[in-house]
Amino acid sequence: MSLPSSARINGKRLWSTLDASGEIGKGRPGGLCRLALTDSDKEIRDLFVKWCKEANLLVTVDRVGNIYGRRAGREDHLAPVMFGSHLDTQANGGRFDGILGVLAGLELMRTLNDLKYTTRRPLEVVNWTNEEGSRFSPAMVASGAFAGRYEVDWVLARPGDDGPTLGEELKRIGYAGTAPVGRPVDSYFELHVEQGPILDEKKILIGVCTGAMYATGMLVEYRGETAHTGPWPMEKRRNALLAGAQLLDAVDQIGWDHADGGRATAARLVAWPNKPGILSDWAQAVVDVRHESAATERVMAERLRRAVFVAGAQSNCDAEILDTWTWGGPIFDEGLNNMARRLADESGHSRLDMLSISGHDSYFMARVCPTCMLFVPSRGGITHHNTELSVLEETEPGANVFLHCVVAHADRADASGRSEPSKAQREGELAHTR
Amino acid sequence: MSLPSSARINGKRLWSTLDASGEIGKGRPGGLCRLALTDSDKEIRDLFVKWCKEANLLVTVDRVGNIYGRRAGREDHLAPVMFGSHLDTQANGGRFDGILGVLAGLELMRTLNDLKYTTRRPLEVVNWTNEEGSRFSPAMVASGAFAGRYEVDWVLARPGDDGPTLGEELKRIGYAGTAPVGRPVDSYFELHVEQGPILDEKKILIGVCTGAMYATGMLVEYRGETAHTGPWPMEKRRNALLAGAQLLDAVDQIGWDHADGGRATAARLVAWPNKPGILSDWAQAVVDVRHESAATERVMAERLRRAVFVAGAQSNCDAEILDTWTWGGPIFDEGLNNMARRLADESGHSRLDMLSISGHDSYFMARVCPTCMLFVPSRGGITHHNTELSVLEETEPGANVFLHCVVAHADRADASGRSEPSKAQREGELAHTR
Repeated sequence: MSLPSSARINGKRLWSTLDASGEIGKGRPGGLCRLALTDSDKEIRDLFVKWCKEANLLVTVDRVGNIYGRRAGREDHLAPVMFGSHLDTQANGGRFDGILGVLAGLELMRTLNDLKYTTRRPLEVVNWTNEEGSRFSPAMVASGAFAGRYEVDWVLARPGDDGPTLGEELKRIGYAGTAPVGRPVDSYFELHVEQGPILDEKKILIGVCTGAMYATGMLVEYRGETAHTGPWPMEKRRNALLAGAQLLDAVDQIGWDHADGGRATAARLVAWPNKPGILSDWAQAVVDVRHESAATERVMAERLRRAVFVAGAQSNCDAEILDTWTWGGPIFDEGLNNMARRLADESGHSRLDMLSISGHDSYFMARVCPTCMLFVPSRGGITHHNTELSVLEETEPGANVFLHCVVAHADRADASGRSEPSKAQREGELAHTR
Repeated sequence: MSLPSSARINGKRLWSTLDASGEIGKGRPGGLCRLALTDSDKEIRDLFVKWCKEANLLVTVDRVGNIYGRRAGREDHLAPVMFGSHLDTQANGGRFDGILGVLAGLELMRTLNDLKYTTRRPLEVVNWTNEEGSRFSPAMVASGAFAGRYEVDWVLARPGDDGPTLGEELKRIGYAGTAPVGRPVDSYFELHVEQGPILDEKKILIGVCTGAMYATGMLVEYRGETAHTGPWPMEKRRNALLAGAQLLDAVDQIGWDHADGGRATAARLVAWPNKPGILSDWAQAVVDVRHESAATERVMAERLRRAVFVAGAQSNCDAEILDTWTWGGPIFDEGLNNMARRLADESGHSRLDMLSISGHDSYFMARVCPTCMLFVPSRGGITHHNTELSVLEETEPGANVFLHCVVAHADRADASGRSEPSKAQREGELAHTR
């Protein structure tokens, strides 16, 4: 027995859950401001858990608040096929980024329930905690913990921008679970809006994401000295805010120097006291560089590293890189990609191989199991903005390919499920180090 | 009857009040963090009022929270001679900046009580609200209101960096007074630590402040668009945080280009959302330029104005100068200065004419009455820093000149007390416009 090729998710039902989600943590018109582990995040988590239970899924929560909804397989001892994304948003977030991946996973479960179809391997839909990093840094910290990249205690101790730690906020909203963080997973799938304009411009409905644009991000700290903005002469000043500003300016310049295929971002700058009348003695900045070419990205990253210290020297402040994160390369599984391409072709819809430029939980999952990421169109590529928009008719085809990929892979006969590593993976082109 | 030239303030008593103040709102070691209208500001206000009442002063509080302690004169219908400064501090403030001026004023009253001496004109010691601007912008907003520069309702509506308005916080701590803001004043005196290294380096104990270094400050706003830090291409980005950073960098460059006698400060930059993963669509910066020469300062101010819009253009953001403040010139009264010089000479201590580089409440008072500002040494010129230090033996001579200036001027026979305007004042060199 296998899933009939005519099987389809219920698009209207999927959209009704997206609409219900869009009512929780409303931000600017049409958008969401649902920062991780706030009251509105609790509200959508509660609703998601309720939906999971109504779909007869076994719900567990792990120590970093990741929520899993499990549907038993015919051979339930096998490692699960997992899929999902995140329900948290940026401060000016849209209604689809991440949310589609979780709710399409839920819809997949409901569809199999309707069809009374049981896969060979168990299935799990997951909501990862704090993917956006818009309240606790770094982003994707909970999928990173699942993949062994971060220690659980370190994750729980991450301070929120507004005070309490991630662990304290998990407890407060009732999502400090007891399940261990990380365990064997057969494979991981993630459906996501593209967050770029390519599918929309080309009128292609299904993107097969082969990997990630190469990227290096840094958390940088400057330390100077407070003094009066008036009498203190230029040559004695050690203004940490200025050092941060000079870094941001330099990062932007790096982006323009490599704008053919790359970009660089001055994302965040905080300082203390950061008040009129006084020089700041502390600043932290978050910056990153990205490029399609691994070699160019390495040049950009090295220019970034030097810019950190040049800005410190120019402002007579001490500079320190507190954290560095890198990703990129053909990290997704070519066997799963080939299956996705075949199923997309069989569905009769156009498809395109693409690179992801954003960070995703799937980057971490690709470190521990074969992983496949599918994109659907995002109008105008607008994202991290309240006007982010995807529509049902352009999303449903991708969601159905997602359904058939997951079920076919969960049903496959061989035990390991691991495809041959790609040439790139064999040669270690994937860099993902701290 | 006039005050004997041998009259002296009680230095030990003055220092005991400074030490008591230094226990309220402690910050980093040796320093204070006593932001305007916080609980610790209420505590020092309460103590100051208690001290005033113990000295038989009539205490009134005006609508913007300025506290006046009045000592009746022999001809009590005459306009008062006023003196004081501020009890609030920067976030990493010292124990002397502003505080000395208020508590030396209190000590002056106590000294006259000891001597059972009544001046011809009434005397008033004042504590101005929010001189530092470290919680509510702009700085010196309450003396500005007294001088008619700001509307009272506008002052009360100033938002604090942490949420509530100045008016709400005045009510909360019980200092939303009913006295009108602004009334005739005979003259104004302010004793202050130099906040620069000159007196300390030259071992001179009394500075006669003839005026203010020319300065222009601006509150600047940038508006852009949020977007994802990954997929969004360089040429579409409208990152308001970056615009602010580029302005800060440009301001610093202006400072270095005119460092012979001038300086420029990148003091403050805030943005929204200012988070990893998203471009910011709003930023505000506070910047200023200062120079000894009026002509050079005008060049710097114009370069600053242009830099505001260049940074906006470079970042494809809308730029707006929300507020501009300027000061500078020989704003203090030459008649009073001459009296101060003479009394300093008679006291046998060395003195020096100097410019003030910081902003002071006296700048606003100089717009409404003859004003005199005296400086005492500040070790190493360190200020807006917890290690700010003045010592009794270097402060007492200036405090005694301050005593004799105030009493002599309050006792003088002529009714108006206004000296001839200086040539500079006549020719309108003093710019203080919004």
